[in-house]
Amino acid sequence: MTPLAIPTFDDVIAAHDRIRPHIHRTPVLTSTYFNELTGAQLFFKCENFQKAGAFKVRGASNAVFGLRDDQLAKGVATHSSGNHALSLSYAAGRRGIPCNVVMPRTAPQAKKDAVQGYGGVIVECEPSTSSREAVFAEVQARTGADFVHPYNDPRVIAGQGTCSRELLEQVPGLEAVIAPIGGGGMISGTCLTVSSTAPGVKVYAAEPKNADDAYRSFKAGRIIADDAPDTVADGLKVPLKDLTWHFVSRHVTDVFTATEQEIIDAMKLTWKRMKIIIEASCAVPLATILANPEVFRGRKVGVIITGGNVDLDTLPWMKG
Amino acid sequence: MTPLAIPTFDDVIAAHDRIRPHIHRTPVLTSTYFNELTGAQLFFKCENFQKAGAFKVRGASNAVFGLRDDQLAKGVATHSSGNHALSLSYAAGRRGIPCNVVMPRTAPQAKKDAVQGYGGVIVECEPSTSSREAVFAEVQARTGADFVHPYNDPRVIAGQGTCSRELLEQVPGLEAVIAPIGGGGMISGTCLTVSSTAPGVKVYAAEPKNADDAYRSFKAGRIIADDAPDTVADGLKVPLKDLTWHFVSRHVTDVFTATEQEIIDAMKLTWKRMKIIIEASCAVPLATILANPEVFRGRKVGVIITGGNVDLDTLPWMKG
Repeated sequence: MTPLAIPTFDDVIAAHDRIRPHIHRTPVLTSTYFNELTGAQLFFKCENFQKAGAFKVRGASNAVFGLRDDQLAKGVATHSSGNHALSLSYAAGRRGIPCNVVMPRTAPQAKKDAVQGYGGVIVECEPSTSSREAVFAEVQARTGADFVHPYNDPRVIAGQGTCSRELLEQVPGLEAVIAPIGGGGMISGTCLTVSSTAPGVKVYAAEPKNADDAYRSFKAGRIIADDAPDTVADGLKVPLKDLTWHFVSRHVTDVFTATEQEIIDAMKLTWKRMKIIIEASCAVPLATILANPEVFRGRKVGVIITGGNVDLDTLPWMKG
Repeated sequence: MTPLAIPTFDDVIAAHDRIRPHIHRTPVLTSTYFNELTGAQLFFKCENFQKAGAFKVRGASNAVFGLRDDQLAKGVATHSSGNHALSLSYAAGRRGIPCNVVMPRTAPQAKKDAVQGYGGVIVECEPSTSSREAVFAEVQARTGADFVHPYNDPRVIAGQGTCSRELLEQVPGLEAVIAPIGGGGMISGTCLTVSSTAPGVKVYAAEPKNADDAYRSFKAGRIIADDAPDTVADGLKVPLKDLTWHFVSRHVTDVFTATEQEIIDAMKLTWKRMKIIIEASCAVPLATILANPEVFRGRKVGVIITGGNVDLDTLPWMKG
């Protein structure tokens, strides 16, 4: 691996031009009900309506469509149990190149089906870091594919930065943006765009209390990894890495956490009142806004709804 | 009761001016996936995002905001187990007048809660026509309220006609509109607007096979009522009445039916691919398009998504 380059806002602009034919400019929705409930003006950037059902298609498309011609035959590969897997498969399918995805055999069937539906090839591993790394090394050695990390990749971060670029255009006068944080790809892209184009706008990160490595890292001033976190927000279990820590440590104003019950309640309430399907991970920002009303009251806040890929047969409020 | 007047398109225009401050101009969504699946160009008019979660707020608001000052103290009343109850309660709440709703005690708790959340007063009856009529007669005698029928009311039909007025503005060149049919309020409003402003556009009605009174009436040329129909599309169990039959018999091109399984499959597929919450009733048009592809292939078709008020604790694909 070569050392990772810190992406700049010029990379975000280049990414946007590169991926625009392959993504949606997603709508921003508002809800009178949630505005009254929180006392804030909330603007939901609906990446659940994005291609492949999640914002991750932005970064994945930027990586795939930025490949040189001589890299195309070997394709791309990644490890992901979720939306990055779908998104990379989608983007690779659009460019007509191979895509190998290492996924834990325990990943939701809906996501496996979706990866294959987009033409991705799944290579299963055990649900442990050591198994994933061993299987992935084998795949990469065999294929020579370009590794597109789910978040610790400058191309991916630049791609994710296009989301808040649209949001800032769509909602003039925004005072803050809040997004979920797992590995930190979306938050890093948000920091990059906001600090470059609207430095007065605060960036907040929202995390499950059960997977609060970003919260603890932010408070400690250094990366602290979780030990096998368990949360309904399954997209947010992964730890920060050097590149995302670069942005989180410099540009995030605060990190808030929410309990499992707060996340599930916020998810169900969003389905009920806004009539949109959002993943548990995307309910974390709203859950933290509801739990910290004094921070957001009276402010114009952008809330990034990161995805809508839910297994409709096992909803979290029906478990147990 | 005075004889019912047939509403005209001027009534639709007046209704639109009257209700505009109280409703959303709902968005029209498209889906690459469904276009490829059907071979048609589908334009989904998303009344699930409407105030109170359903198109019925259009007709209810037109009735409520059209009341004379001397009618206000006695308020409005209706019988409905569903979205008309919510919608009338919402509209009455906006005007600050009383609203009594006769509902079967077996109605979904989510809808009872929503009616009360908007300030409506629920008067329970048994789930039979005779009980409903007896209880409603008592309520009306006691309150002197203005009766706003769920669909067989010219004010309501004129209000529902505003939906396709927006749709025709939002999608130039539309060739057909399809909507669910229960009592026929939405279809009648659609017929009124389309026949007046875009007479070349076909109007199709979609109905559960298990509650196919409109289908049988349409084919027979006279109103035929169902005998206690049972369908997952619970908003579509009610029969046509004289006023809605007037429009259905004159302006509908055809009525299609869908089985329970087809409806549930179309509902779940819409949740999964479009990431929006739609009721079973609104899945009936898509189910019939999928079952009759030759009718719709190659055409620009408006599909009215009538509402999104679903009990999230009992989803139809999880039953049984």
